Amino acid sequence: MILPIFFIFFLTFSSSYAAVQDFCVADYTAPQGPAGYSCKNPANVTADDFVYSGLAVAGNTSNLNKVGINPAFAGQFPGLNGLGLSLVRADFEVGGVGPLHLHHGASELILVVQGTIIAGFIATDNTVYLKTLKQGDIMLLPQGLLHFQKNGGDTPALLFASFNSENPGVQLLENALFQSDLPTELISQTTSIDTAEIKKLKGLFGGTN
Amino acid sequence: MILPIFFIFFLTFSSSYAAVQDFCVADYTAPQGPAGYSCKNPANVTADDFVYSGLAVAGNTSNLNKVGINPAFAGQFPGLNGLGLSLVRADFEVGGVGPLHLHHGASELILVVQGTIIAGFIATDNTVYLKTLKQGDIMLLPQGLLHFQKNGGDTPALLFASFNSENPGVQLLENALFQSDLPTELISQTTSIDTAEIKKLKGLFGGTN
Amino acid sequence: MILPIFFIFFLTFSSSYAAVQDFCVADYTAPQGPAGYSCKNPANVTADDFVYSGLAVAGNTSNLNKVGINPAFAGQFPGLNGLGLSLVRADFEVGGVGPLHLHHGASELILVVQGTIIAGFIATDNTVYLKTLKQGDIMLLPQGLLHFQKNGGDTPALLFASFNSENPGVQLLENALFQSDLPTELISQTTSIDTAEIKKLKGLFGGTN
Amino acid sequence: MILPIFFIFFLTFSSSYAAVQDFCVADYTAPQGPAGYSCKNPANVTADDFVYSGLAVAGNTSNLNKVGINPAFAGQFPGLNGLGLSLVRADFEVGGVGPLHLHHGASELILVVQGTIIAGFIATDNTVYLKTLKQGDIMLLPQGLLHFQKNGGDTPALLFASFNSENPGVQLLENALFQSDLPTELISQTTSIDTAEIKKLKGLFGGTN
Amino acid sequence: MILPIFFIFFLTFSSSYAAVQDFCVADYTAPQGPAGYSCKNPANVTADDFVYSGLAVAGNTSNLNKVGINPAFAGQFPGLNGLGLSLVRADFEVGGVGPLHLHHGASELILVVQGTIIAGFIATDNTVYLKTLKQGDIMLLPQGLLHFQKNGGDTPALLFASFNSENPGVQLLENALFQSDLPTELISQTTSIDTAEIKKLKGLFGGTN
Amino acid sequence: MILPIFFIFFLTFSSSYAAVQDFCVADYTAPQGPAGYSCKNPANVTADDFVYSGLAVAGNTSNLNKVGINPAFAGQFPGLNGLGLSLVRADFEVGGVGPLHLHHGASELILVVQGTIIAGFIATDNTVYLKTLKQGDIMLLPQGLLHFQKNGGDTPALLFASFNSENPGVQLLENALFQSDLPTELISQTTSIDTAEIKKLKGLFGGTN
Repeated sequence: MILPIFFIFFLTFSSSYAAVQDFCVADYTAPQGPAGYSCKNPANVTADDFVYSGLAVAGNTSNLNKVGINPAFAGQFPGLNGLGLSLVRADFEVGGVGPLHLHHGASELILVVQGTIIAGFIATDNTVYLKTLKQGDIMLLPQGLLHFQKNGGDTPALLFASFNSENPGVQLLENALFQSDLPTELISQTTSIDTAEIKKLKGLFGGTN
Repeated sequence: MILPIFFIFFLTFSSSYAAVQDFCVADYTAPQGPAGYSCKNPANVTADDFVYSGLAVAGNTSNLNKVGINPAFAGQFPGLNGLGLSLVRADFEVGGVGPLHLHHGASELILVVQGTIIAGFIATDNTVYLKTLKQGDIMLLPQGLLHFQKNGGDTPALLFASFNSENPGVQLLENALFQSDLPTELISQTTSIDTAEIKKLKGLFGGTN
Repeated sequence: MILPIFFIFFLTFSSSYAAVQDFCVADYTAPQGPAGYSCKNPANVTADDFVYSGLAVAGNTSNLNKVGINPAFAGQFPGLNGLGLSLVRADFEVGGVGPLHLHHGASELILVVQGTIIAGFIATDNTVYLKTLKQGDIMLLPQGLLHFQKNGGDTPALLFASFNSENPGVQLLENALFQSDLPTELISQTTSIDTAEIKKLKGLFGGTN
Repeated sequence: MILPIFFIFFLTFSSSYAAVQDFCVADYTAPQGPAGYSCKNPANVTADDFVYSGLAVAGNTSNLNKVGINPAFAGQFPGLNGLGLSLVRADFEVGGVGPLHLHHGASELILVVQGTIIAGFIATDNTVYLKTLKQGDIMLLPQGLLHFQKNGGDTPALLFASFNSENPGVQLLENALFQSDLPTELISQTTSIDTAEIKKLKGLFGGTN
Repeated sequence: MILPIFFIFFLTFSSSYAAVQDFCVADYTAPQGPAGYSCKNPANVTADDFVYSGLAVAGNTSNLNKVGINPAFAGQFPGLNGLGLSLVRADFEVGGVGPLHLHHGASELILVVQGTIIAGFIATDNTVYLKTLKQGDIMLLPQGLLHFQKNGGDTPALLFASFNSENPGVQLLENALFQSDLPTELISQTTSIDTAEIKKLKGLFGGTN
Repeated sequence: MILPIFFIFFLTFSSSYAAVQDFCVADYTAPQGPAGYSCKNPANVTADDFVYSGLAVAGNTSNLNKVGINPAFAGQFPGLNGLGLSLVRADFEVGGVGPLHLHHGASELILVVQGTIIAGFIATDNTVYLKTLKQGDIMLLPQGLLHFQKNGGDTPALLFASFNSENPGVQLLENALFQSDLPTELISQTTSIDTAEIKKLKGLFGGTN
């Protein structure tokens, strides 16, 4: 009987390396390198490593901006490690605003699942690309450009944003300026914003210096 | 007055190249290269180039598999060109099935927006990673592996799938085998499927030879 | 005498980092990340790390498909780690068949060294590209598409396949379907293949459920 | 005599493709794609295509910020096309300030050639990395993060900044906010800056709405 | 009958973009960019575009080095365009030598098909990695390092070299130095080779100045 | 008061992953992989990790070539790890020469800060691109091609060279040939240089065999 040899052969052939190479589920306890986290031993990987239920619930919207942000990046969802994509859920109460921010190293594609969203980005020649999006619309926000989203309707709104990076570094403008310890004088010199305004906002956001 | 010089300076500095480099909206009529379509003249780009409404409606589910697939790839949505991400909408009637397929050069992240989805992928060592997903769950399908989704509940289901490629080539297994003109004999030899079964399925799918 | 300083200088300049950066021979015992295995201490690297003799012999062809596959991937040949290329030897007895499969993340270039090979791939629009290759012919199989090779002559055939990845994950269709534990019902639903045929092939290949 | 054949052989071998592949000098008049400009006919490329003298002179510092910026990106220096690096010269008068900005898709390495520079960047967790740099110091500004430079001394200062992109898109914060037509109300909602302050700065920078 | 809709649906879905994205066969007459040649209209692509028979014959060995080099790069084999791999055939007469050279942007994997080959490369710390290879052996030559191959036996030898680039730019050391018009004085200053020796070799290779 | 929740939320959201992902300062004591060194614990990273003062001083020019090379690569400057750029300082005495060399995997952009520099590179078709550069001129040296720089004036010269790699492996031709243990016979066979000349230069540079 010739068959068993065949099956054993191919099984051996592929199993010695395959699971490791098909994916690299993050091992948060091992060294991290420029390409991401070390890989979990593939023998311990299960289907659960590829599923994340954290986005089933809204982020907390009890804040000034009335927006709840719920990320599924490699830091929350280990299966994404090294694979170059991720997802965020954003819930907007009526009047909710996602403040100006950008993602280094990733473009973003937003999908409006509920309500009306006004979204826009600013190109490097200072042109503004601004649109009102209805349920089902998608909008592209090119890599590394300042952008925002806000609820444009009278009912709560919900969107999901996908990224072509498993860790699309998020830089929020108002937090970078007013929650940091960058000296007020330097902020004013490098943004032209009045020092009194900066101090007022630092008081609000908790920035120092 | 010193200011105008300043503003003109920076305007000139950035506007001479910036719009072209921030994005490359597809010009479907110009030559295409390995990295994608040629760029539309940025002077003619508007916010509309970054918005796509085609996913607001379900794909047609009046088919054998009771599934409607609605893609937003670079071929449908020119703003995606060169930016490395895209989105698909999939509507499943009760009993609807997304047949086994794979995407070359892209991983996939599915988000269940409505209903219950059973999804799975097969690794190269033939291990099956299979899960039942509820509304709000997300699941990762690593690059280039065979996978499927099906409605796992008693009500219609809806999912969106994001990809880290603007053109995640879709190879559907049953279409590749039974809708193509690959000779039945060759299919049988290279898949071990019986020729009678192949001929039956070719009759159903329209394959020849 | 001024020269020694010069030589020592350049030696110091380059030797502090160079060997590490010119290559990264796999250390199979250290953590693995998305970009590959950790690097062996360059002080212990020798010319032997860059040579592999495993392809000098044919793979075992005593199997149903009468084909012997002998890979030199990063898992077998540590010098390939991180360098993005690899090689496979495939021996075909008369009547030998390399079953339908694909490689995620790698294109393939086959070279017929002996005999006659029939090779083909299926594009995502289900077009079949099929050719009979003579000794010395080469054929390109683009990334991530289903393809096969078979002996097209009356004598044994031999080919070598090169890949632009050091670990071109191999997904064999018949093994993925019939050697896995994907439930027969799901296979049938997602491939349209009859359950009786699937059960028969699972019996042959060892699949369960 | 056997030699001429040899030389002709290798000449033919390499010259048929090589010049095209060693570099791709920009042809600004041909289609542009996601990877950059089309290539100039290599037969017309000369050494002059690889040299740029535009950085030998200071940029105009007669502006509010007392800084002169002089870029050598692919739009100014065609030899850079497709090669992934570029350079900028920045001259700071006493009191000169390079306002907060970022580069999408590129890290930056600054070299202080003259004077004293205070430079800093803000990480996505709002930590500020701030240093005073003397002549000869270099500082790294990681990809996509807000950063600034200013003259930190009593004499003019000069720096050169290198980038790992031939087109490191420059987004200047104050110009994006106050020179654009993003409505004042939206700016205020998405940055928390007071509308009166925004209107004042729009008056200064020329923004509308 | 519900089936035809299904098939038409998926056919339309995939055929509108797929062929273009699965591959990009070179159109040598259209503009070329940093990522390669423009794509041939996929409607005109046939299986012949993916097969190349030029390596079935030895290159001409009637030269000083007694080596025949026969490349299958994107310039000769249009199907390789954009796919990142290629192949070269090298025939060595007894005493044949492949002179010192390197490939920018590509590693190389050589396979000895006939005879005995001595191959080696020099790392950037000047360590030499040297091996004698028998039929069936493979050896890795890491990206961008000087290397050579020579016939190490008493019979003709044949090897194939694969590259992870479709255009692995070949820089031959003796041709770069002695067949170019780089002034003798400059060559001597930058290599320490005596001017008399350079002039002698320029006479042999045809270099000027 | 609703604000604190907001600030805490965003702080938590970003700080859990951000610092790690914005940069990956090298930890020289942990495993190294194909993408670079492991990352230092971000909690221990300070602004000092992003600044390097080693280029403020000239390299030692007391050598045969009268050139001092001072590199800031990832091996010297840990902040560069994984970020893909680096810098070198080169000081040329009168008559100083930077010998022929190349960088695998990186293009180079030189900036003349003082004096006059003659620079050139040799393309793979043996064309020489040669220029005399004045203070402030920049010149591009495309990836992987042999090139040199020399002082072209009567006063000391200074240049800085930037690279689009944090470890642009440096292969110096005369050191590779004459400081290594590559046997003289092999060098002669693979470069056409006379054995007497090689032996003389090995005596000078310290090569053996």
